[in-house]
Amino acid sequence: MSPGEPRSRSGLLAGLRVVELSSYVATPLCGLTLAQLGADVLRVEPLGGAADRTRWPLADSGTSLYWSGLNKGKRAVAVDMESAEDRRRVADLIVRGGPCAVVSNSDRYPEFGYAELSARRRDVIHVLLEGRAGGGAGVDYTVQAATGFPMITGAPDSASPVNHVLPAWDIAAGLYLAVGLLAAERERLCTGRGREIRLALEDVALATAGNLGYLAEAQVTSHRRTKSGNDVFGTYGRDFVTADGERVMLVILTKRHWEKLLAATGLTAAFEGLADALDTDFSSESQRYEHRELISTLLARWFGVTPYAKAAEVLDRHRILWERYRSFEELGRDGGAALRESDLFAVVDQPGVGPHLAPKSPIVVDGARLEPGPAPEVGQHNPELLPGPHVTRSPADERGAGAA
Amino acid sequence: MSPGEPRSRSGLLAGLRVVELSSYVATPLCGLTLAQLGADVLRVEPLGGAADRTRWPLADSGTSLYWSGLNKGKRAVAVDMESAEDRRRVADLIVRGGPCAVVSNSDRYPEFGYAELSARRRDVIHVLLEGRAGGGAGVDYTVQAATGFPMITGAPDSASPVNHVLPAWDIAAGLYLAVGLLAAERERLCTGRGREIRLALEDVALATAGNLGYLAEAQVTSHRRTKSGNDVFGTYGRDFVTADGERVMLVILTKRHWEKLLAATGLTAAFEGLADALDTDFSSESQRYEHRELISTLLARWFGVTPYAKAAEVLDRHRILWERYRSFEELGRDGGAALRESDLFAVVDQPGVGPHLAPKSPIVVDGARLEPGPAPEVGQHNPELLPGPHVTRSPADERGAGAA
Repeated sequence: MSPGEPRSRSGLLAGLRVVELSSYVATPLCGLTLAQLGADVLRVEPLGGAADRTRWPLADSGTSLYWSGLNKGKRAVAVDMESAEDRRRVADLIVRGGPCAVVSNSDRYPEFGYAELSARRRDVIHVLLEGRAGGGAGVDYTVQAATGFPMITGAPDSASPVNHVLPAWDIAAGLYLAVGLLAAERERLCTGRGREIRLALEDVALATAGNLGYLAEAQVTSHRRTKSGNDVFGTYGRDFVTADGERVMLVILTKRHWEKLLAATGLTAAFEGLADALDTDFSSESQRYEHRELISTLLARWFGVTPYAKAAEVLDRHRILWERYRSFEELGRDGGAALRESDLFAVVDQPGVGPHLAPKSPIVVDGARLEPGPAPEVGQHNPELLPGPHVTRSPADERGAGAA
Repeated sequence: MSPGEPRSRSGLLAGLRVVELSSYVATPLCGLTLAQLGADVLRVEPLGGAADRTRWPLADSGTSLYWSGLNKGKRAVAVDMESAEDRRRVADLIVRGGPCAVVSNSDRYPEFGYAELSARRRDVIHVLLEGRAGGGAGVDYTVQAATGFPMITGAPDSASPVNHVLPAWDIAAGLYLAVGLLAAERERLCTGRGREIRLALEDVALATAGNLGYLAEAQVTSHRRTKSGNDVFGTYGRDFVTADGERVMLVILTKRHWEKLLAATGLTAAFEGLADALDTDFSSESQRYEHRELISTLLARWFGVTPYAKAAEVLDRHRILWERYRSFEELGRDGGAALRESDLFAVVDQPGVGPHLAPKSPIVVDGARLEPGPAPEVGQHNPELLPGPHVTRSPADERGAGAA
């Protein structure tokens, strides 16, 4: 196989070459998402491996489970990023062979920028992630702080911001990058020309706050959002504890859900009386939100005297929207027994980790998903993609030197 | 303009027609994301408007700011979904004219399913969102509960789960839907055939937990994740309060960041002494995580005696990664003055809301973004897309009747 040709793959994106100059979450997730749909994704790292190769959580061997998870099924080369010769060889990989897209979170090296690459080949697609539009630094946690959500997350009686642990902006950014890349790929197929795509992590968060109405609300109304614990805003939803201590989340979106919930919990007569006494109509979503404390008080009594198994049976029978809280520990218990039921997962034998259940793409195409492959080792694909004397030290040498 | 032809638009996706049979967040966000890149997106609603037309937050007029935000720049038709004739007319819109993709979160009507549509036209792309793979119900809040993150969010001393307010799984799902659709569009351009794409909200959450290493950690290590407040896992990051009560988030990812932070806060000598005394090396990321309480104690003292303006100046001068917490109220204050600085926002004059700053796409293509347009009113585009006698009641009649 010649270096410029994609690996033979199936999937919607078979034949698409992607070179990732990436790190952390968003850009590797972009590449992973494309790889899981059949693209040939090559991650370029400095000798010894990228900085995020050691990111927690780790397996007992020290192998990063985080890195392994975000780089499944990619190829990897390691080069001396301070060597102009090595950088040129990577740029050659980009511009030779089949059409290629670059995914990057750094504009440090001009050889990998859109200006130089598109001058060498006009159909290059170049996708760059920035912290802030225009080039300022930013990571998920700083963007969270800048954009309002931590101030309305957590218990109502707490004044402190509560960050979400899920790197939600990184996830969204990685997927927006893939959207931008594939939109440019569509145009390239029609016109033969490439594009430069830029995305700022902060813009992703601000655009989302705008799309969901938070920013319009702050501009055109006098309403101020406050923390409301696990209450769902503007409709009825909350968490409850059963008699035997299980925690469940309950959501009532429609009049039909509400009537079924009352039937399920034996509270129909109680709420008829309350509706009369308060001159309100609980079948209205906004009235349920208005009276959420009252509703929760009565429901909490029902859950508090109902064992989990009974509550689950009753809620399911009435087709109520609810879920039990589960921990990661529970999901991974007994070798991931709870995950094995799902077609989403398949066993991957990852060096340094061993066989474990890893996700395929959540995107199902005509009923099928590609199988996941292990993440590559540092420089694993140097021999096939960058043969010759130019990379003077092998990755294995470099790792040995680093450890010595 | 004939009904089957896309509106003349610029953007990467000009010429792509998308019909949305959608509601709530994920499927409308998929359509919005495509519309913001130039696709012609048509949202189909029942007479009187979709259920999410009234979703909070609301403008003083009662117009949903949430709905307006997620449906900017789309067209909308309203039909009697219980009428087979009306459904056929919508299906005709899908299969006639230029290539079309369908985005849906319901398999209720066979006329809009992949089987019937692809039998009528083989290049139809059909993208369906489900709650759980295989068809079970689920919304962002129930999927959150099922997949581990609320159990590790919030203060360490709290046993209760903390849901994230941001509908992060809806956002990710909407973007995954767009990725799947565009990947299928790429194949359609190459082969002329369509595809059926399915995505389950629960799979999005489980795949993400897997991609980030949480599920592998639970399978192959004995380490158990616990709540850690606003501490960043596996590296050093936390929130602090300045002498004058401002709250800031600080993140230290690299050895260089760490050294600059010590220089900025005058703590270099203190940590040299501590490193000797504890026989540790704070230049190691894992050691900083290990000793995060100690580091935070000393940094909290510095922030506690330093006014915000001084802290900001010092941190910026040393190029430390940090951010001040802002509320939505602050972002929207004075007509969104803080937003006006950004090219992300432009004024949209939304009926029922008035002029306000609304986001364009976070995706910037060759330095430019398309301008945002207002969200459509119920049935606004019936006259141009579904002319004739079949839709017997006009949307305006229906709204009047609903209010009467």
